[in-house]
Amino acid sequence: MAWRSALLLDPAASDDTREDWDATFRVVDPDGPVLPLGELSAQRGDGIFESLGVVDGHVQEVGPHLARLARSAELCELPAPNPAQWRAAIARVATEAGSGEYVMKLVLSRGVEQGPTPTAWITLATAPDNFRSRSEGVDVVTLDRGYALDAPAHAPWLQLGAKTLSYGVNMAAIREAQRRGADDAVFVTTDEFVLEAPTASVVLRVGDRFATPSPAAGILHGTTQLSLFSFLEARGFSTAYETVPVTDLTTADAAWLLSSVRLAAPIRSVDGTSVPVDRAFTDELNAYLLSPRD
Amino acid sequence: MAWRSALLLDPAASDDTREDWDATFRVVDPDGPVLPLGELSAQRGDGIFESLGVVDGHVQEVGPHLARLARSAELCELPAPNPAQWRAAIARVATEAGSGEYVMKLVLSRGVEQGPTPTAWITLATAPDNFRSRSEGVDVVTLDRGYALDAPAHAPWLQLGAKTLSYGVNMAAIREAQRRGADDAVFVTTDEFVLEAPTASVVLRVGDRFATPSPAAGILHGTTQLSLFSFLEARGFSTAYETVPVTDLTTADAAWLLSSVRLAAPIRSVDGTSVPVDRAFTDELNAYLLSPRD
Repeated sequence: MAWRSALLLDPAASDDTREDWDATFRVVDPDGPVLPLGELSAQRGDGIFESLGVVDGHVQEVGPHLARLARSAELCELPAPNPAQWRAAIARVATEAGSGEYVMKLVLSRGVEQGPTPTAWITLATAPDNFRSRSEGVDVVTLDRGYALDAPAHAPWLQLGAKTLSYGVNMAAIREAQRRGADDAVFVTTDEFVLEAPTASVVLRVGDRFATPSPAAGILHGTTQLSLFSFLEARGFSTAYETVPVTDLTTADAAWLLSSVRLAAPIRSVDGTSVPVDRAFTDELNAYLLSPRD
Repeated sequence: MAWRSALLLDPAASDDTREDWDATFRVVDPDGPVLPLGELSAQRGDGIFESLGVVDGHVQEVGPHLARLARSAELCELPAPNPAQWRAAIARVATEAGSGEYVMKLVLSRGVEQGPTPTAWITLATAPDNFRSRSEGVDVVTLDRGYALDAPAHAPWLQLGAKTLSYGVNMAAIREAQRRGADDAVFVTTDEFVLEAPTASVVLRVGDRFATPSPAAGILHGTTQLSLFSFLEARGFSTAYETVPVTDLTTADAAWLLSSVRLAAPIRSVDGTSVPVDRAFTDELNAYLLSPRD
């Protein structure tokens, strides 16, 4: 992964209706010093983010990602992002992407300690090569997330539905999965329901029906999963949000991890038990996910 | 709180035995741009920290804080910090502290994405005025941490005993407490045992016995609590680490939040129920905690 471009935004009020946002942007060196040590993103992981796929210069699903950024801001009591400003910034950074796949990251932090405003930035980097994950699939292990299914409903301060910068547990889970010889993890509740992967949604297929764990369980509502469900519904499949017992992972006809950059990665084993991989069908899903989507 | 000083460290291997560390330090402007946007502390809260009190130029409890930093590094699979290098850096930053109270923060992040080494820095800032919290006490509310008491024992990837930069939930809990008209929160388990405050340990007194929740419950082992227990033991009191039911908070003879900078803040109410405050005894505790300690 190589950095390609970075832009700082001076975050505007959500009701600012100006049309030219250039004066609020500052191009910065993605490798150079930018953030002060008092940045609350760096001091406390206090902020939110989104990762968007960019394919041949087209930024995927800008609307859904900005909607989720706004939702995360609300859950974390950060000022509402101005969607027009972010769209303008995204468009500007996207001009630096050539052909091929890139990852664009939007970050909104609480700002510098005692500072007047949040800090906001966008980075663009070349995407890792995900060909093998998409075609051959990934081995996953299930890891206890420590919570029961009903935890987030009565403890909103746990911020379980927000995509926050406090991402240390997600990274630790991936390291634990790799230590066990797998590629990725799937978080499950203490009462043994499927939640999500550290950086992806989980989708299962049984017959012509596709299911994913309900976002009410304090997981992120995946933008790629949402887009895939629209595609599947248009093709006549049925889709559902539901509580998914862990045992369903290995009895499903097929299962995938869905995320904005890796896209659809078929799960080929769960805790060492094989899961069928439908390569042709997965290729169709990824062809759709790589097409321009808004 | 005003920044006073900041130092970047080029982290040395833990077995580096050199005596002069100056070449590994770089004084930086605490308000100026230092960290690149690819910093994993800022991108993912991926790193660890310690906050130390500095009183009239003396840095409190350097040894215990460095021991906990090393323990956090181990839990988070970061390279072991070199204690001699950190001691030299702490001593150098401490020369910038005048009389009065300061807070010194040590940070060790996983570094820049794809970068070769972790990033390490120390900041020094004037401490907030904690006179009122120490003398009049704090109102707290109990907040569900979402976990059962036994969660950390079988899910080490949750990093519950490490002091990580993924601190968003701690900050959200304090905002929730303030929304409810209190000053601070006390986290409790789903099975109703006391854990810790978002930035402090909890200590209860019943007669001549002092108790604090066992660190085995996936909470931080408080350096200030540890120091206080030594002081209390030397004065003939008994001390214990144990599982503390939530109901004990309001039946105790007294209770305190203990932390490195605010020191001993007596709890004067829990969810609106008064707790006795022994001001004279608390003053004694804080006089000890403000004396030079190593």
